[in-house]
Amino acid sequence: MMKKINKNSKGALLWKRAKKVIPGGGQLLSKRSEMFLPDQWPSYYKKAKGVETWDLDGNKYTDMTLMAVGSCTLGYADPDVNSAVKKAIDGGSMATLNSPEEVELAELLCKLHPWAGMARYTRTGGEAMAVAVRIGRAYSGKDKVVFCGYHGWSDWYLAANLADKKNLDGHLLPGLDPAGVPRNLKGSTLTFSYNNIDELKQIVKKNKDIGVIVMEPLRHHEPKNNFLREVKKVAKKIGAVLIFDEITIGWRLNIGGAHLLYGVNPDIAVMGKAMSNGFPMAAIIGTKEVMQAAQKTFISSTYWTERVGPVAALATIKKMKKVNLPAHLKKIGALIGKGWISLAEKHGLKISVVKPEALITFSFDYGQDSQAIRTLFTQEMLKRGFLASPSVYVSYAHKEANVKKYLKAVDEVFKIIKKAINSRKVYKLLEGPVAHSGFKRLT
Amino acid sequence: MMKKINKNSKGALLWKRAKKVIPGGGQLLSKRSEMFLPDQWPSYYKKAKGVETWDLDGNKYTDMTLMAVGSCTLGYADPDVNSAVKKAIDGGSMATLNSPEEVELAELLCKLHPWAGMARYTRTGGEAMAVAVRIGRAYSGKDKVVFCGYHGWSDWYLAANLADKKNLDGHLLPGLDPAGVPRNLKGSTLTFSYNNIDELKQIVKKNKDIGVIVMEPLRHHEPKNNFLREVKKVAKKIGAVLIFDEITIGWRLNIGGAHLLYGVNPDIAVMGKAMSNGFPMAAIIGTKEVMQAAQKTFISSTYWTERVGPVAALATIKKMKKVNLPAHLKKIGALIGKGWISLAEKHGLKISVVKPEALITFSFDYGQDSQAIRTLFTQEMLKRGFLASPSVYVSYAHKEANVKKYLKAVDEVFKIIKKAINSRKVYKLLEGPVAHSGFKRLT
Repeated sequence: MMKKINKNSKGALLWKRAKKVIPGGGQLLSKRSEMFLPDQWPSYYKKAKGVETWDLDGNKYTDMTLMAVGSCTLGYADPDVNSAVKKAIDGGSMATLNSPEEVELAELLCKLHPWAGMARYTRTGGEAMAVAVRIGRAYSGKDKVVFCGYHGWSDWYLAANLADKKNLDGHLLPGLDPAGVPRNLKGSTLTFSYNNIDELKQIVKKNKDIGVIVMEPLRHHEPKNNFLREVKKVAKKIGAVLIFDEITIGWRLNIGGAHLLYGVNPDIAVMGKAMSNGFPMAAIIGTKEVMQAAQKTFISSTYWTERVGPVAALATIKKMKKVNLPAHLKKIGALIGKGWISLAEKHGLKISVVKPEALITFSFDYGQDSQAIRTLFTQEMLKRGFLASPSVYVSYAHKEANVKKYLKAVDEVFKIIKKAINSRKVYKLLEGPVAHSGFKRLT
Repeated sequence: MMKKINKNSKGALLWKRAKKVIPGGGQLLSKRSEMFLPDQWPSYYKKAKGVETWDLDGNKYTDMTLMAVGSCTLGYADPDVNSAVKKAIDGGSMATLNSPEEVELAELLCKLHPWAGMARYTRTGGEAMAVAVRIGRAYSGKDKVVFCGYHGWSDWYLAANLADKKNLDGHLLPGLDPAGVPRNLKGSTLTFSYNNIDELKQIVKKNKDIGVIVMEPLRHHEPKNNFLREVKKVAKKIGAVLIFDEITIGWRLNIGGAHLLYGVNPDIAVMGKAMSNGFPMAAIIGTKEVMQAAQKTFISSTYWTERVGPVAALATIKKMKKVNLPAHLKKIGALIGKGWISLAEKHGLKISVVKPEALITFSFDYGQDSQAIRTLFTQEMLKRGFLASPSVYVSYAHKEANVKKYLKAVDEVFKIIKKAINSRKVYKLLEGPVAHSGFKRLT
């Protein structure tokens, strides 16, 4: 049964209320309603279980999009993780004494990453990256950071935009404004492009004081020409600490950091999101030598000591291993990707699909109309009971039956889109504004 | 029955293992075993309920010290908060859609603080202070920060020690090393002393570019000569954003920020710890005008959107109101403080007690031997079944009967201490090393 788009749904109205008391409406750019379907998105959930989400009006949707921005890789409210967490809560989520699970987790992470010897924890990814950069600077004794990709909201990262606001363009979030980042940090952070080793070499030649190199081992494109190994060589040569940000890609391609697949070990790796299936947790792991530099500085926070984070991580890692999560994500992501390609061909739509399967993503290739077409896709899929955008963060809860139903809906929606493009009615069919496409439009 | 100190307890051994895989052994300076009783502290908990904690060997202790560093003001594993949290977890701790409780909490915080119009959240206090400073700098357009007191591990704060390592002395954690903090931040953060308005006025006279003033409204000393009002006047005159850090003092003296008691409203207040009774959560609240500056910059993190934090905060605030928590903390803290004074008089011990009652604290006044005497106090109280140091973060779970038993033990231990001092046997009675007293000795 088709759902009607309701601009006066409880969720849409609450989002309006939220924007009066919360700058931007929420805590995360990627979860803002305007990023999906302005004025029409259900915005809030009452309940989420497996791949299903119920909005405040009780409508049920299947999540074929971000799955909590990659944090719920086992599915929402996973029974095994929840059961371990609830047991920990019954026994006290916090005390003056420490949680023994912290030690168990550190030992497990070091066992999974034999190059690493020590771990520290935070509760969010941005915070974990800031800790990693602090340790990297403390160890190398050099302040300058060079990075590629997106690594969060902290000063060290946004400082790249102080020199020239366009520096972060191409680093996943163009247009990031560094207001409130101390201007003294200008020049402290530089950027390079993924798979461009010559650019990195040029930068280190010009800047003798680079102490830290930060990157994801990969996101949507694999390393070419031994890129990771070459970066590692550069880091070693100049005495810089190499940090791999595994917050998004980790635990999806294999159990642990994706760098294990390429046999290139960083000095520090940062884990988060998927590692704890929806409970705040992040880990900074590194070689004993580099991690000891944490003792030369001050890195300490009360809520980093609570018990739910490590308990959730231990339960999540255990289950990821048990069910062979990476194999499942690859299989399901491949089905979705093939489905998109085959349906696009059937209807004569121009799309591009990018891997890895666990983060399968497509884009409409219609130039400046692409964003409106994407919005129409989300709108029509919502009517058919799916939270959908051109990215699927595949989870263990996504089964073949979900994909089958989803592709049936995509078939209908691709047909509508093709017809709309042919008759130049894309904008007319939209029942609200075009979705925002990035940071720039939301400020 | 007296407990024996066991250097080979499961907890003591696990702490040794921890130090091999976690720099410093844990995530928080104040929870390190060396801060209490080196080599002998139980270190880890299996279970915590009310004011009681069970160590890994099953020994039961009454917590008459930090109560999870002030984060569990209702007591450990509070049934009402836990029940709300577990319900939220059953319904999914996270989803692609947002948690409606975020909006409810923002509206409640603004209702409790009528000067505030908007809220943002993080999950830890240090992170919340970094967000507050970012917003303050973005709004004022000026980077320089002047502060007094302790405000966490972030670059903006530790930068004060770049100029002269002694700058943070007297700000609760002397000896903080700023290794890994970019040297470009030198001079970006200045310090002033609490209750010294002339010092602040001198600083703003010499530094025309101060954009943010950060302080706790109070800790162990009340503002004198309208100090808060005078600071506010300075902030207004120079166009700086005034931030009150309420992470420790908030919710203890009254429901909400302690500044409400003094009728002086900041531009931003930061809440954490007690607000969510042991579940990671922190809030930055502020005037609509200042908070809107968050939209001029980029402040976004995935795990800030999970549901447990706001649910725990709503349940905690509701219960704090219902039981009139501040009145209870004052009553119990007063009993403890009076007990210490009367027992010290009885045994002829020199101690000083500082308020507020909700954070009641004493110190031994024996010069360079004070730290050894303090260690002996912790050691002998542990044998009698108490986790104890000279600070009690009073909670709702502390009842008069607990205080009575505790003071009976203090009576015995003060007698032992007095005798040890008279016979110069303090160090001889210690079964392990003297406890560390601050950051300096732990690095």
